[in-house]
Order: sequence, then C-alpha cells, then structure tokens
Amino acid sequence: MYNNKQCFDKAKKIIMIKYPANVFNVLKSMLGKRLEGGNPMYKLAIIGDGYTAAELLRLLAYHRQLKAVKILSVDFVGKRIDQVYPQLLGFSDLVCEPSRLDDIKDSCDAAFLALPHGFSVPIVKQLLEWGIKCVDLGADFRLKDPEIYTEYYQLEHGEPELLEKAVYGIPELYREQIKKTDLIANPGCYPTSAIIPLAPLLENGLIDDNIIIDSKSGVTGAGREPKASSHFCEVNEGISPYGTGVHRHGPEIMQELNLAAGKKLDITFTPHLLPINRGILSTVYARLKPGITGEMARTCLEDKYASEPFVNILADGVMPSTKWVYGSNMVDIGLYADEDNRRLILGSVLDNLTKGASGQAIQNMNLLLGLEETMGLQIPGLHP
Amino acid sequence: MYNNKQCFDKAKKIIMIKYPANVFNVLKSMLGKRLEGGNPMYKLAIIGDGYTAAELLRLLAYHRQLKAVKILSVDFVGKRIDQVYPQLLGFSDLVCEPSRLDDIKDSCDAAFLALPHGFSVPIVKQLLEWGIKCVDLGADFRLKDPEIYTEYYQLEHGEPELLEKAVYGIPELYREQIKKTDLIANPGCYPTSAIIPLAPLLENGLIDDNIIIDSKSGVTGAGREPKASSHFCEVNEGISPYGTGVHRHGPEIMQELNLAAGKKLDITFTPHLLPINRGILSTVYARLKPGITGEMARTCLEDKYASEPFVNILADGVMPSTKWVYGSNMVDIGLYADEDNRRLILGSVLDNLTKGASGQAIQNMNLLLGLEETMGLQIPGLHP
Amino acid sequence: MYNNKQCFDKAKKIIMIKYPANVFNVLKSMLGKRLEGGNPMYKLAIIGDGYTAAELLRLLAYHRQLKAVKILSVDFVGKRIDQVYPQLLGFSDLVCEPSRLDDIKDSCDAAFLALPHGFSVPIVKQLLEWGIKCVDLGADFRLKDPEIYTEYYQLEHGEPELLEKAVYGIPELYREQIKKTDLIANPGCYPTSAIIPLAPLLENGLIDDNIIIDSKSGVTGAGREPKASSHFCEVNEGISPYGTGVHRHGPEIMQELNLAAGKKLDITFTPHLLPINRGILSTVYARLKPGITGEMARTCLEDKYASEPFVNILADGVMPSTKWVYGSNMVDIGLYADEDNRRLILGSVLDNLTKGASGQAIQNMNLLLGLEETMGLQIPGLHP
Amino acid sequence: MYNNKQCFDKAKKIIMIKYPANVFNVLKSMLGKRLEGGNPMYKLAIIGDGYTAAELLRLLAYHRQLKAVKILSVDFVGKRIDQVYPQLLGFSDLVCEPSRLDDIKDSCDAAFLALPHGFSVPIVKQLLEWGIKCVDLGADFRLKDPEIYTEYYQLEHGEPELLEKAVYGIPELYREQIKKTDLIANPGCYPTSAIIPLAPLLENGLIDDNIIIDSKSGVTGAGREPKASSHFCEVNEGISPYGTGVHRHGPEIMQELNLAAGKKLDITFTPHLLPINRGILSTVYARLKPGITGEMARTCLEDKYASEPFVNILADGVMPSTKWVYGSNMVDIGLYADEDNRRLILGSVLDNLTKGASGQAIQNMNLLLGLEETMGLQIPGLHP
Repeated sequence: MYNNKQCFDKAKKIIMIKYPANVFNVLKSMLGKRLEGGNPMYKLAIIGDGYTAAELLRLLAYHRQLKAVKILSVDFVGKRIDQVYPQLLGFSDLVCEPSRLDDIKDSCDAAFLALPHGFSVPIVKQLLEWGIKCVDLGADFRLKDPEIYTEYYQLEHGEPELLEKAVYGIPELYREQIKKTDLIANPGCYPTSAIIPLAPLLENGLIDDNIIIDSKSGVTGAGREPKASSHFCEVNEGISPYGTGVHRHGPEIMQELNLAAGKKLDITFTPHLLPINRGILSTVYARLKPGITGEMARTCLEDKYASEPFVNILADGVMPSTKWVYGSNMVDIGLYADEDNRRLILGSVLDNLTKGASGQAIQNMNLLLGLEETMGLQIPGLHP
Repeated sequence: MYNNKQCFDKAKKIIMIKYPANVFNVLKSMLGKRLEGGNPMYKLAIIGDGYTAAELLRLLAYHRQLKAVKILSVDFVGKRIDQVYPQLLGFSDLVCEPSRLDDIKDSCDAAFLALPHGFSVPIVKQLLEWGIKCVDLGADFRLKDPEIYTEYYQLEHGEPELLEKAVYGIPELYREQIKKTDLIANPGCYPTSAIIPLAPLLENGLIDDNIIIDSKSGVTGAGREPKASSHFCEVNEGISPYGTGVHRHGPEIMQELNLAAGKKLDITFTPHLLPINRGILSTVYARLKPGITGEMARTCLEDKYASEPFVNILADGVMPSTKWVYGSNMVDIGLYADEDNRRLILGSVLDNLTKGASGQAIQNMNLLLGLEETMGLQIPGLHP
Repeated sequence: MYNNKQCFDKAKKIIMIKYPANVFNVLKSMLGKRLEGGNPMYKLAIIGDGYTAAELLRLLAYHRQLKAVKILSVDFVGKRIDQVYPQLLGFSDLVCEPSRLDDIKDSCDAAFLALPHGFSVPIVKQLLEWGIKCVDLGADFRLKDPEIYTEYYQLEHGEPELLEKAVYGIPELYREQIKKTDLIANPGCYPTSAIIPLAPLLENGLIDDNIIIDSKSGVTGAGREPKASSHFCEVNEGISPYGTGVHRHGPEIMQELNLAAGKKLDITFTPHLLPINRGILSTVYARLKPGITGEMARTCLEDKYASEPFVNILADGVMPSTKWVYGSNMVDIGLYADEDNRRLILGSVLDNLTKGASGQAIQNMNLLLGLEETMGLQIPGLHP
Repeated sequence: MYNNKQCFDKAKKIIMIKYPANVFNVLKSMLGKRLEGGNPMYKLAIIGDGYTAAELLRLLAYHRQLKAVKILSVDFVGKRIDQVYPQLLGFSDLVCEPSRLDDIKDSCDAAFLALPHGFSVPIVKQLLEWGIKCVDLGADFRLKDPEIYTEYYQLEHGEPELLEKAVYGIPELYREQIKKTDLIANPGCYPTSAIIPLAPLLENGLIDDNIIIDSKSGVTGAGREPKASSHFCEVNEGISPYGTGVHRHGPEIMQELNLAAGKKLDITFTPHLLPINRGILSTVYARLKPGITGEMARTCLEDKYASEPFVNILADGVMPSTKWVYGSNMVDIGLYADEDNRRLILGSVLDNLTKGASGQAIQNMNLLLGLEETMGLQIPGLHP
C-alpha cells in the first residue's frame, strides 16, 4: 500500500517551496486526519476516568487534530481504557496510568480535567505553570465568588486568584475571552441548557426578573459511581425532583444570568432525574416585559444564534425532544409565547455528556488551541 | 369442603333475628369477598376497551362488592378480554360484546364509561334514564362551561343540562356531592395531580394567583392506539414538552383552581411525555403570600388530608417519585419552601391509570353505591 | 360508626353456641381481614431488608391471615420500613429492628428469611428449635448436595442435616411434602421459570436429555445493593449474557430436572440481564423424543397444570411476554413445536420478585400454616 | 478566510506534474472531506424514508466521499428530511421528493434502497439498466431460491435472474465478489449477527450440525410505522419471543450457514423483542466436534477476523453487551466453551441499524465504488 507519511512529506516539501505559509497550513489541516495518528497537531492528557472521560475519547476518535496520549486514573490504573469502556475497543489503545502529573509535563500540549470537585485546583495550578492549557470539566473554576463555592461545595478554594483567569466556557457567549486564556471552566450541563436560551433575552431586556427553570436530566449526569440513586431499579419507570433548592448548579446559573441581566434576578431551578442515559431538557418559564411579543423574543434568539453551528432555534410551534441531540453537540431551543398573560415558555435540550460536558470541552479546546471550533464535533444525534 | 354460601345463609338468619340491621350489614360486608363471586352486591358494565378499561378489571379483581359483568367494545367484539389483555388471564372470563346499550339495561346496576370524548354524552343520557349510575372516565362532563368544551374538543355538547348534574369526581374535594348524584365526571390525570395539592392552598388564601404547573406523564396516558408519538423508538430515551399552551387538561385545571380560589387565576400548565408506562409528576411553582410560611402551607395540606386514605403529605425534605405510587391509588405530595423569595414548590405524584383514572373511578363508584370508599383500592405501589 | 370487634365478638358468641366448630372456623376466616389487623391468624417475622422483603410486605398488604409483625434489618435499623420503601407508605408501620433472634422467639409463628447466602443456616437452626416455621428465600437449603453448595457458594454448609428436612418449595411439584415440613427452601427465580415447564415433560419421558435454557431477567433479581452491574447507565438500552456457565442457579436447575427425569441430563443454562425491573423469560430448547408430537407435549403440561391457580398454559400459537405477569404470582407458558426436526420451544415467564421469590414464599407459607394456598396472591399483573 | 477549493486546485496541479498518479489519488482522498461538500466523489440517492434511511444520513454526515443528493419518499414528499428526523437538523437540507426514478437517472452514481420487500425488484432492474449501482437494504435479493422467497414473503419474485447477480453483502465473507458486482443484497440484522460468528466455524468443520440461535433485538428493527407491537407501553418493561419458527430471517440464516458448512444444517432461530431502541444480541448454542477445543474455536475466529476493522473477538471470559456497539458498525463476539459436554456458546452483538443495516450498506457501497471500506464508519459506540 501507499505510505501516507511519505506522500505528505513530499507534498509538504513542494508546497512549502512554492506557496506561502497559509496554504501549507490549510493543507496540513486537511491532511491531518488521514495520516492515521501520525500527525495530529496537539497531544492531550485526560485526567480522570469517569463518563466524561469516556465521552472525550469517543469524540476524539473523530478529531483530526487532537489526540489523547495519556489518561490518568485512580480506579483503573494498568487497565486498557477499552476494557473499562468497551465501546472504545478498536478506537483507543490507551492504558490508564497513575495520576502522576510529572508524566504529562513534557508529553502533552493541553489537558482535560474530568475530576470530582476540589481535585482540579492544585492540578490546574501546576499544569498552567508548565504551560499546559487546561479545560476543567469539573466545578472548581465556574463560580467567580469563592465564598459561594465554599457554601455549595463545603471546600475552601485553594487558589482563588485562578478564578479570575478562568473563563466560563460557553463559546457562544465568551468566544473571544476563551481564545485568549489558558484555563477554561467548562460549564455544568444544567447551566448550559438554561443559559444559552436565557442570556440573550436578559441582555436585551426582553423578560422580567422572575424565572423558573424546571430541568430534567438523564442518569449519566450523576456519574459512573454506583449509588442507590443511580441503581437501575430505583430510576427506571419513574421520575422525581431532587436537590430541590440546593442543587450546586443553581448558583452557577444565577451567576451567569445575573451577569447577562446586569442585576440580581429571582431564579428558581429544580432538577429532576429521568430514566434515560443521556439528555437534559430545561423547560423555562419567563414573563415577557410589557410591549414585548413572542416574535421579538424569537427574533432575539435567532439573531444571536444564526451563525452558531451548535445552536438550533426551532420553527414556530416546535418543542424539542432530548432525543434529537442524543450524542451530538447541539442545543435545540423551542419557544412558546402566550401574549395574553405575557408568558414565555422555552424548551431547551442538549446531551449532558456532549454539549453539557465533553463536547463543549472539545469545542473550548479547539478555541484554546487555535483550531477550527467545530472540528470533531459535526456529528448528528443518534436517533432513533 | 365447607360451603360458604350455606354458612353465610345460616349466619345471616341468626344474626338477623338477634341483631339490629346495622350489625347484619357489617357482617354482610365482611363476608362479601369470601363468597367467591357468589355475592357481590353490584353488577357493573364497562363501556370501552382501552387501557383504563383494562385497569378497571385489574382493580376489580381485588374488589369484594363490585363485579364487572359486561364489557362493551368496538375493536374486540367476540374476543375474550384476557386475550386482549393477557395480564387478566385467570382473573376475568368476560367476552367483549358489541356496544348495544340495551344489553346492559337490565343486567347492570352501574356503568363505567371509558370512551373517547363525545361518545359518552348520549350514552350517559340513556343510562341515567334507565336508572343506571354512571362514572364517565372521559372528558365529556368535566368542563362546566359547554363553550369551553366546544373550544377544546371541537364538538357541541349535546346535553348541556347534564353538566349541572355531573359532579367532578375528586372525592377528597367533593365527597358529599358525589354520594348524592348519579353521574360522575371522573377527572383527568393531570388535573387530579395538580388540583389535590393546590386546592386547599387556594381555598385558604395562602398563595398568589400566579401558578406554574410543569407536569410529566408516562405513555399510558396517551391510550393504546398506536401513533407515531407513542412508538417505542420515538419515546424511549427522551423527554419533550407537548401540547404547550393548548392541552385539553388546561381548562379543567383552571376551572377547578379558579373555583377553589374564588377568582380567575394566572395558570400555566405544560405537559411532558416521559419514557415510562405509568406515572405523573406535577412540579408546581407557587408564591406564598406575604407573611405565609412554608410551615403554614404544609400544615394546611396536612390538616386537609390527615384522614384521607389516598393522600400522603410527605415529611419535610422529601420529594416523591412516581415509582412510589406505581399501580396504587395514592397521591404523594412533597413541599419545598424558600421563604427568602416566598417560593413554594410542590411535587405531586400519582399513577395516571389508577388515581388518575380507573382507581379514582372505582373510588367514586364506591361512593355512588354507598360502599366503603376504599374498598378494592388498598393496594401498595409496585416498587421496585 | 360501628365497632367491628364488638360485632365479631357477638356474632362469634352466637354462632359458637348454635353451630359446630367448623362453621365457626369458616366464619373466623371470612371475618379475618375486615377486623383490621385485629385478628390475623399468624404473626410473621421478616428477616432481611432487601427487595424480596419489600415485596413480601407489598403482598402481605392483601393477605387476610398473615401479618408481618417484625422486620429485622442490618442497614436500616431504627428506620420505618415505609421510609426505606415509600411504596409502603400507608400500608405498613413496621420499624426495622436489629437482627436479634430472641426478639422474635415469642412474638412470631413463622418467619421469612430474605438474606444473602450463608446467613440463613444458623438462623434457621435456631428458629426451628423454637418451633418457628421457616421459609428461606435464599440459597442455603436449595441444593441437596452440600459439596455442590460449597463449590458454587464457597462456603461449607454448617448444618447439612437440615438439607434433608428442607423441601424445595415449588408447590406445583412438592405440595404434599411442603404441607408436612417446617422448612422451605424457596426456589431461585430462574429455576422456577425453567422447572415448572420442564419437569412434567421429563417425568413423562417426552423429551431428550439435551436441554438449553436461555433465560433473560430484570434487574431486581440482582438485589438492591448498588453495583456497577446494576448502575442505570450500564444496564439501560442494552442486553448481555452474564455468568455464562457458572451461574449459581445452574446446579439448582440441574438437581430438579435430573430428579424429574430420573437421570443425569445435559443442560445448558445461560442468564442474560435485561433493562427492566421485573420479569424473567426462559426460552427453553428441547427435543421431542421420536414419536412424540407437539400436541402430546402440550397435553402433558395442560393436564399437569389444569387445576393449578398460578400456571397458565397458553393457547396454541401464543408466546408470553413478561409484562403479562408483572407483579403477579403467575407463570405463563407458551409452546412451539416443529415436528420436522422434533424441536420443542417453550417460553416461560414469571415475575422474579413474585412467583420467583416473595409470592411463591407466601404460597409456601400458606401451605405450611394450613391456609388456603392462594390467599393474598390472587392479583393480576400490572399491565400496561 | 482561505478558499479550500483554490488550495486544492493549486496543490493538485503541482502534485500532478511532479508525482505519479497514485500519489495524487492519495492526496485527493486525504483532501476529500475538508473540501466541505465541494468535492465528494459520488452522488447518491436514498430511496425510502424509514429508520434505515435516517441512519444512512446520520452516517453519511461523517463521510468524505459519499453525498446523498436525493431522498425519494412516499409519506413525506415536500418535507425537509430534518423535519422528519430532527436529529439531522444542521446536517442535511434534503427535501423528500416523490418516488420518480427518472429524477435520479442522471443525478446519481449509486443508490441505497430502503424499502419494504417487493418494491425493490423493479426499481433495481431499472437502475441497473441505467448503470446506477444498487445497495438494497430490503429482503428482495437476499434469498437465492425464489421459491423460498415466495414462501416467506408471499410474493413471486419478478426478476429471478437478478438473484444471481446480487451478492450477499457481508464484506467479511464476500469482499471480492462485492467489489465486482453492481447489486448488493444488504443482509438482515439478525442474519449478520449470527452468520459472522458461525460461518468460519462451519467452514472449518469445528462444530456439529445442530445449532440454536436465540436472538434479542431492539425495536428499531421493526421499523417506524406505528403498530400495536411497537407501542411504547406494549414493549417497555417486558420481553417476549415473537415469530417463533416463522421469522423471515430464518431462511436467510440457513442459506448462508448451509453454504458455509457445505450441507444442510439443523438450525433453530428464535427472535425476541427487547425494550431498547437499538441492538441485537444473538446467543448461539453450538456443539464442538469431538476433539475440538474451545481454544481451537477461538483461534479460528481470531484468525478469520484479525484484520477485519469491524469485528472484535473479545478476550476469554468476556461476553458482550449490545451497549458496546450502540451506533457503531462493530460486531463484538464473545465465546464460552464447556469442554465437558462440548458445548460452545457464542454471544454476538451489533447495532441493528448500523452493522445490521445502514452501516453495512455504506461499507458495501464503499467497496462497490472502489473507496476505502472503512470510510465514514470509524466511529465508536455511544455508551453510556
């Protein structure tokens, strides 16, 4: 058979002589994937071994320019990751390694941290010192106010100065800041589903301060550790609210929506556990300001997200199902307005492991590293 | 073996001589069940052959005093009902008969109607003329205002004068009226889940006019007819809102809550379809009036429902799962109050086929016929 | 209101004077349930707090003559059982007590043991000495050969002489022995589903020695302890074989089928885990002996089970769904014969928690205590 | 931004001058995808609008060289396909067109037919005459014997001479024939799952003639048309056998396994319906020939499939879950041998819509068109 690497090297030589650098870069980007692992631009570490780590590896299998070269684990040290997550059989030959940071110091350009809260703080500090860019999928850098962090996570934040550096990683809202930093606080799944539809409406002053967010999530959101609350028989064939009034994603939602509105809002957030693996639906109840029509709200969202590759504003009369975004990086948003009582209802869906976690993390990583934002993420949902 | 009937006849004779009538009635009631089908007090017709009809037969298998002697069908005429619903194999030998009312004229004391809307109006008229009491599980007699009926069901109501006679069948709210009528409009499943927790709070003036009801239902609520929206693959592994702003249970909820409040409220009701067979959760967002505490709201509900056999007010901090009432006639209600912003959140669950339909229908029938209200319904939920 | 107890006492007095004892017994039995807890004939202890214990309590809620008066626990001591299993709210006010046997010595007539294997051996020994009859839902007394027990359970059996006393509790096969013993080894769920259809065919020599049993089970069969293998996300939307060739129910099936055949058979048993809560389907592949027709196999099973209240032999051409027996004590069996290659396929379904565990345990307890075998168990499946 | 097309044209010009043709082809293949729709090599029609058509579009979204340019429909003419299947929103702007073959005569290089049986026969005849290569996902060209086709499908086969031309499309078995034909009979989902593990064992004479295939399938296998048997409530929380002894995939399995063995085998195939969307598990019971060990069977499969990109032979002791291949084109196969009774058990899983239908169809199309076989299909399963 032909030898890709040789082809590429030859082509590169010619092109470099004859053409300006930007043409070469285009070619290099084009050629990346086909060179079967030979030439991805960036080497990545994944620190953590839970569901979001597995989802990173699933998505990186499609990515031409990012390659996971290390996975640091606690529970599975010495095991191949495709033994732990057999869906990866044939797609990754990584072996889980002990969580020694030194091992990635020189081998990685950037890192995903997929860890329980509290763990990322010292790790990020070290990695940044070594010049390794970080996307933290956990909660440690999302809340700007360390006191609220302490209140909700029962931990003192060891490096509060990093909170300023960290950018809250919703590219649709903070794209330019993301490109300039080296630390991303990858948002929570519930917050992403609520903030994307609400932020533009609040920024533009179209809705009242009083907002109710009734969210429903699949079980992957609770992680892979076996618990009574994720036991099949306790979840299957039922639904219930949980964490009413105290869920840790509450303050994160409030922080971002207050920022968008420029004032303190009156927000109620209630999560529910659903008998599905993946998917979040946030049903949002807002009140249109006097004089604001449903059409104006729709136009506001359509304008904001017209050129966004990962946000669909659905046609009038259509509310989304979480199934439409199963495994994809999309957010689908439906609107219903009852102008008689100025009620605005938004239905916002995403896959909590993809746009709600690992997909958005890769989107952020693409931006951090100067790659095309959609690279590796242009995949439809798996339905039916 | 002994002969129950002979025992009973002898005991009856003695007791009737020696004891006043009420003692005999107690005995008769006690003895009913053991006389294995020989002595149920009332013969019933079931008109309809859908899921609620099957659920009536499931529950009547436990009932000592009610016996279904006829089932009138359209789709299954000539088939044994246990062929159509094999869970009834060994529990019912009824054969589906054509829907000729004359056939039940003399053979039944009362009837359950489990039909699509529109069909019950003329049937009920005829049955009542024959002195056959009716519990209508459909929508034809729930809305007091025939114009709203026409608006939501696209039908003129043929017998509006029957609307006055019909009692809305939530025994916890209308017990005395139910006992005195002969026509029950058995409530919708969503309305039952919303009205039971809200009516007492509104009657006692504890909450504001602005109420949001975010409801989630299993698929049995959509009936047994195959439709794209009930196709397994379209439902499984997903959730979506449906009927936003136009669901037919909206006006029914509003009618009853407006009645409880004594004024027109501002109610938003959004149903969602869940990938489960049975169960409704209504998450209700209300606002406590100034000066009203969460404890006062709780006490109001506890007082109202303390002696109700089918309503549980859950302990502080507990929100219900639909699984707790799977197959039972219970409503479980949890409360959460955030007094800082006067927010009151209620979680209310029931089984849409049982307390949301056939269980409540039997509860109403018991009352109509002067039986003990709980007869045949004291069954725990099926969990796990 | 009337006072049931007074009524009963009066009635009893009269009847006892005028009628022979057996009439009184009939009455007492009839009256049992209505006297609201005042007069069940037998007081029971439940030792264990898992899913089968909860299922016992669900079923005992329908039972007129058995009352659970104690529940001994390890994990939930001091908690009300309806906090642990909220489906029991309103149906049981038992509080979980420490597992001290002395506490039940004088308060109970009989006991259900619902414990991990190994635990029942010493407990049963003690209870039998005190004259407390035992139905053991665990595995400790099922295998007649203590060496096979040791091989499969990695434990020495401390009281092998009890193995002779113990009767394997399938009433359809061992009814007379059950009535005469005081120790029941309540069968495993898979074995019950396989033995009931196969034993008569083997006893009557209709099929060859080579039998394949491909069984599929819901997750409740794995118990309530959270494990990776019962994590919702690891089970939902999938199926897999497990314990291939080594599952502990294998030797139990072989013991009973070998007994029925009177020789050592060649049996293959493969269990699979299904994403459902309840239900077992065993698809059984046997070979009709030369000259034996499918009709002869059908007749054999129909004759055997014609008068059995908990076994349905389905009509020709009908194969069962586990849904038909969801929550009921039934076994539904379908047959398909291809006489060209003498292939006989049996489909056998039951609810693993009911006929596969707690329902059959109550059926056995009824027999042990001289009650009507079906008491408390005549409940249809919950479908849809 | 840069202009991909210009870059490519320039690069092409240089490379063509300086390098031999094969290098250019490599480059062209490398560059294909990045030219964002501008340069796929082949234009395809999809004839049909069901689940397999939707799955083709999902997978083609990843494909660099195949582009669906037409979708012919019956039910959805005039609708955008992303309205029918909203998971495609943002990934396809095709509009369903009437099923007029003339419309694709000049616009397409090849076609996928995803139609009910019977429809493909005349369509394929016409398309082949026009030189349009066909992959038929239906059943019309799978059975070599038109009489068996008539027996199982109740249709006369209108073009039996095409049956000789058609190649049964399992590339792992018929790769060279596939490359040379222009008509592929894409196999059924059950047959693919059974034939891949069994064919090599039969070809090499390692197992006896008597084989039992107990298969379990998700509901997508039954198509998108609403039927009682695919109603959510009739499927959820249950399992049952169906089509026992008469399923149409039976003769297809037999044809291929008989071919592999070179003689008529004794095969029993029983499908079951599972409450999952996607996935088939076939548990296969075979008997090792005397002298054949489990290790020899394993080696046979490992050797056969060592270099196959879509077949994993699992490690000793591992049985697969359908979840591992959810949405991927993989077949995972586990083996268990009990040499005492020469029993060999195989567990074989695939996604019925992917490797069981549309994924394999694209694999075949790649081969038909001379593309790399794995193109567009190297995607991991979606788990959890």
